[in-house]
Amino acid sequence: MPVFQTVRGMRDLLGEEAQTFTFIIAKARETAKLYGFKEVFTPVVEPLELLSAKSGDEIRQRMFVFKDLGERQVALRPEFTASIARLTTTALKNEPKPLRIFSVGTVYRYDEPQRGRYREFWQSNFELMGSAKPEADAEIVLLTNSFMKALGLQGYAFKVGHIGIIRGILSQEGVDEKTQNTILQRMDKKEYDEALKLAPTDKCRGMLEGLLSLKCNDCFETIKKIKAYVANYEKAKTAADNLGEVLKLVVESGCPVEAVDPAFARGLEYYTGMIFEIYIPQLDIALGGGGRYDRLIELFGGEPTSAVGVAHGLDRIALALQTQNAAIGVTGERKVLVLAVTEALKVEALKVAEMLRQVGVAVEFEVMGRKIGKALEDADKRKVDYAVIVGERELKEGAVMLKSLSKREQAIVPIKELSKKIVE
Amino acid sequence: MPVFQTVRGMRDLLGEEAQTFTFIIAKARETAKLYGFKEVFTPVVEPLELLSAKSGDEIRQRMFVFKDLGERQVALRPEFTASIARLTTTALKNEPKPLRIFSVGTVYRYDEPQRGRYREFWQSNFELMGSAKPEADAEIVLLTNSFMKALGLQGYAFKVGHIGIIRGILSQEGVDEKTQNTILQRMDKKEYDEALKLAPTDKCRGMLEGLLSLKCNDCFETIKKIKAYVANYEKAKTAADNLGEVLKLVVESGCPVEAVDPAFARGLEYYTGMIFEIYIPQLDIALGGGGRYDRLIELFGGEPTSAVGVAHGLDRIALALQTQNAAIGVTGERKVLVLAVTEALKVEALKVAEMLRQVGVAVEFEVMGRKIGKALEDADKRKVDYAVIVGERELKEGAVMLKSLSKREQAIVPIKELSKKIVE
Repeated sequence: MPVFQTVRGMRDLLGEEAQTFTFIIAKARETAKLYGFKEVFTPVVEPLELLSAKSGDEIRQRMFVFKDLGERQVALRPEFTASIARLTTTALKNEPKPLRIFSVGTVYRYDEPQRGRYREFWQSNFELMGSAKPEADAEIVLLTNSFMKALGLQGYAFKVGHIGIIRGILSQEGVDEKTQNTILQRMDKKEYDEALKLAPTDKCRGMLEGLLSLKCNDCFETIKKIKAYVANYEKAKTAADNLGEVLKLVVESGCPVEAVDPAFARGLEYYTGMIFEIYIPQLDIALGGGGRYDRLIELFGGEPTSAVGVAHGLDRIALALQTQNAAIGVTGERKVLVLAVTEALKVEALKVAEMLRQVGVAVEFEVMGRKIGKALEDADKRKVDYAVIVGERELKEGAVMLKSLSKREQAIVPIKELSKKIVE
Repeated sequence: MPVFQTVRGMRDLLGEEAQTFTFIIAKARETAKLYGFKEVFTPVVEPLELLSAKSGDEIRQRMFVFKDLGERQVALRPEFTASIARLTTTALKNEPKPLRIFSVGTVYRYDEPQRGRYREFWQSNFELMGSAKPEADAEIVLLTNSFMKALGLQGYAFKVGHIGIIRGILSQEGVDEKTQNTILQRMDKKEYDEALKLAPTDKCRGMLEGLLSLKCNDCFETIKKIKAYVANYEKAKTAADNLGEVLKLVVESGCPVEAVDPAFARGLEYYTGMIFEIYIPQLDIALGGGGRYDRLIELFGGEPTSAVGVAHGLDRIALALQTQNAAIGVTGERKVLVLAVTEALKVEALKVAEMLRQVGVAVEFEVMGRKIGKALEDADKRKVDYAVIVGERELKEGAVMLKSLSKREQAIVPIKELSKKIVE
């Protein structure tokens, strides 16, 4: 007989881990609601053409691409942004701005599987379209902060930067966009030496090298230093100003920003402004990240549209919660088993079970046809709180036996008082 | 510029339709909780071998099959049961029975798109493993009933049958399993004439024909007739007895069973016992269906395990809710806009917004940098209930301006009383 396994890089989520995912997904939805982001569902399978329109080469080569039975070139989405951009330029084209859009689901990348990295993984994705103001950037950072807080993560912190600082210097030094992208990719991978080698002139190399040394412990101090350092580079200076404004809004609103990193680049080529990532001290992989990408919607045939967004990696958040032994708020819930003393009383017992469920009590019904003693023994092992035993004698008086398995006590309780007794 | 579309047969869910899906998914999770079903997440992409192990030919030919970059033959899951069966025979092999497992997510079939049928569609899936008792069958039907009720669907009803009745007759008449499957498939498509032609003898054909005529308005009456009709077919009689027991449990628990159909077969070959589907009067497609499949786990290399399950079609449920103009319980929620009178007050306004969100109020922050009048005009259009205006004068006294857009009135409210005023 075959033993079946999951496809390499993909996994089942079971037990507590699954509960953690359900919890994270619920918190993401709650965050969306609190910030006025409307949920949309887009397909997992998208035209290859759509998904290729914006992704950097790196992602494009790691997509699950195939032909459907109608010979269409399709792929599994490697992230949400392309699909949301499609919506913005089609069905939502005439909606008043700003648009606040939320999605949660699985995405797919053919990466080498490792801790916190899978070929199928979960993201919650927030996009705010239509505003170029720093408060829009702030909103995306702040909602991420709320989400992390609601999850109960400890000691998380934001790393922020602005893609316009390095690009501003490079443009003014005459570096073409393609070389800029390569330099940014190297920097993102912390391959600073290789990045510097790509600078076309000594002056340019010197500027980059100096920039890398500006990072210090105080965010606002770093901003001040950057502004002074790029004083002669107009676009870089505008970028630093903008980053300062965003930073002020988020830090003063209580968001923990650990570092402003002038050499921070993030992999994707489409960012145009502020960028950020979230970390906890115990893990060296980001729990999420995002930033501003004002030119993306044009790529999809839309009007030029300011946009800022974030994607949270739910698998990594689950790992973070596990690493921190976080309790995921499933306390206070009673587990109840309902069982009938005789076959003939099964219908009555089912009715009692339904009644309890209707007032929100989670009930397992005894479906194994076991003797009472055996069923109770098993319930005890599975940490069931109460057993409701439906027997003939009690039923005649409109009552059942309520047994507290944890307290080892029992009482005859009128059926109409049952839910009150269990919930109290 | 290209205009991007979704892949044929797949669709975006937006606006109210998306809200309806979020609502249905939440109700499915709630149902799982109330019935003690534990959520698991399995991959969308599974080994082709796994998905082929059980699916009938019909589904197998309609799968999205491809090779990943490692040349593995994989496919997008056409349903959940194969993945859950894998779990039951691997990671959950040693878990005590009964196992109650819940999943919700997308599944994929290459069908001709039409109303209520898509190539990517949503299912909630419940499997109860380890019990052969009629109360296990009843639990699956009853939780479906609870789910439909919680959704607010009107006039839905169950159609039930038992695959063992026809198979019992056919086996005793010497019909091999493959021919049995073909006959059942024809019956499922209501191609009764073609089904009857496949009967090998006149006697067999006569038995089937007679069986088809037994359906009447009263479920228990139908059961009685079937029992009498198959009195000489031992296995068919056992099946009819079993169906009668299940029916007693569900009908007396208040579940609306409209019809017992002796010729009801459902497409999938793996059912071994009771089968059922749910309908509303306004639609001729089932909103969900399931049944007992006691031999399936063996197919996946596991111990023989009794099992019963159901899959609900969320796209069809959404269509049903829309057809019935059902309200999906998003009433009673206040929409609030927070805005600052001047640039300098943005941080203070953000703090007010965060404070409101922390007590569960959904807040849109003004991110467009519009003048107050313009922002309020826009908020009014989008049916925002309240605007909170953060101005210098009020702020000095720890207060803000609260404007009810629906009632066209405004008042200066201390910040600490703000959430109370809005929620009341």
